[in-house]
Amino acid sequence: MIRTVVSSPTRSVTIGPDLPFVVIGERINPTGRKLLAEEMRNGDFSRVEADALAQVAAGAQMLDVNAGIPLTDEPALLAEAVRLVQSLVEVPLSIDSSIVKALEAGLSVYQGKALVNSVTGEEERLEQVLPLVAEHGAAVVAISNDETGISEDPEVRFRVAAKIVERAESYGIPPEDVVVDPLVMPVGALRYAGRQVFDILTRLRQELGVNSTCGASNISFGLPNRSGINSSFLTMAIASGLTSAITNPLEPEVVQAVKSADVLMGNDPDCTRWIRTYRQPTAGGRTRSGRRGGRRRSVPS
Amino acid sequence: MIRTVVSSPTRSVTIGPDLPFVVIGERINPTGRKLLAEEMRNGDFSRVEADALAQVAAGAQMLDVNAGIPLTDEPALLAEAVRLVQSLVEVPLSIDSSIVKALEAGLSVYQGKALVNSVTGEEERLEQVLPLVAEHGAAVVAISNDETGISEDPEVRFRVAAKIVERAESYGIPPEDVVVDPLVMPVGALRYAGRQVFDILTRLRQELGVNSTCGASNISFGLPNRSGINSSFLTMAIASGLTSAITNPLEPEVVQAVKSADVLMGNDPDCTRWIRTYRQPTAGGRTRSGRRGGRRRSVPS
Repeated sequence: MIRTVVSSPTRSVTIGPDLPFVVIGERINPTGRKLLAEEMRNGDFSRVEADALAQVAAGAQMLDVNAGIPLTDEPALLAEAVRLVQSLVEVPLSIDSSIVKALEAGLSVYQGKALVNSVTGEEERLEQVLPLVAEHGAAVVAISNDETGISEDPEVRFRVAAKIVERAESYGIPPEDVVVDPLVMPVGALRYAGRQVFDILTRLRQELGVNSTCGASNISFGLPNRSGINSSFLTMAIASGLTSAITNPLEPEVVQAVKSADVLMGNDPDCTRWIRTYRQPTAGGRTRSGRRGGRRRSVPS
Repeated sequence: MIRTVVSSPTRSVTIGPDLPFVVIGERINPTGRKLLAEEMRNGDFSRVEADALAQVAAGAQMLDVNAGIPLTDEPALLAEAVRLVQSLVEVPLSIDSSIVKALEAGLSVYQGKALVNSVTGEEERLEQVLPLVAEHGAAVVAISNDETGISEDPEVRFRVAAKIVERAESYGIPPEDVVVDPLVMPVGALRYAGRQVFDILTRLRQELGVNSTCGASNISFGLPNRSGINSSFLTMAIASGLTSAITNPLEPEVVQAVKSADVLMGNDPDCTRWIRTYRQPTAGGRTRSGRRGGRRRSVPS
């Protein structure tokens, strides 16, 4: 079974199909968060701190850190955010940027083995990002698009993923350090966006045998009751082979979806974690107490 | 694409992998429902009536009808229940019994093309139930166990299913009228109960191309927060190929799971049904309004 190991100085996290699903907290990302962007631009990282602590408390095994704010010194900002988050929490980080210099700056201050988010199948990106990943002994997220854009044909996206895995090997990065992102499009705009991802994930598992991740919340963009779509998408993707996701651990429905998927994939032996989280803390038959339990699971019962 | 069509005098329901998932209401079943059993034994069908109406109002496209009460004339009871339910609701029925005489009695009063629930891979059952199904031009649920019991090996259960499909054909029942039940065991007792079902469903879809159903709620037996497990099990099974289930449409989480799975399988074009069900009826950001909407969707908004 494939194993991707990432680490901080004090903790390592292993991603694998026979292990509990790994939630990578998505919140530290100014994209679409005006207030956070404004604060970070002004050097105020208080919301980054709060998001880091809250996500880990909610059960995130890793955190994604992105500092993509237009017209700023993104490399410096990302390095600062990485340093700060590592000083606050023990979980390993995913260093997230579309700018190679920012990835480099983040990696230069990171302590441990990071996940670099991301490389695509575009030649220029492959040639810039893969040497950096190899040099730092990191793992990397491989997004399955290339110069031609994002194909709606799962076959094409699968081939892009396979190409990145192969190219990574030529730089000395083993397949277990490549975590493929099949690319999640909004199902409200693209009818088969869900099915396409499930098909790619099945092939990634059966044919490439690599680990996978995705920006899961994108699937529900523009739809009502987003957490209802997000949580089902996660469980269905996990059944298809997904082994980690960049998502929001502060949504109780997402947490419940992941924990129940662990049970149903046989990755929560004796249902120990499920029972500990959702057993009734009080008498009575309130069916929602489970979800509340999910929120409160650090409170002694 | 495979199509299983069942009908009442006024309505037909089609099961297929590219169509909305079919929910078969599970409630009219005295197993484990003491009060219902007691009432039915005394000829009081008021709860059967209420359950029939409530399940259809909640969106069940079919209803399962079972009258398995020890020490009663089950054939007469089942026939009476079938007659009564057909007089109340228009949806097609699944006639559910382990007693062949009861299936026969139910079929003899049923109007339309019923789903017979069930036949197993046991020789005696095959020889008794299949001629009955053929005679009435019905469809049949094929449960994948045989004389040797329920195997924990998905391969064995798949082979039993294939055998039933083949045997049915020899009685003139086409594969589209055989709906395979991979058999759902409690995951609290059997660690890989979920994964086994997903594996069998994948093979049923890829190799036999038949429709499938299951008693979905069994998966969570003995665990807390059963609807959390049930709803994820359904979505994961649907991603693996499940096309219908005998489950509880009165649980809003189950309804939400099925509707979201339809969206994610591309079987809710333009997300029309999802948006109609879950759009915010009022101003404000209450994240749970979606679920409430699910319960109330027959109320004009």
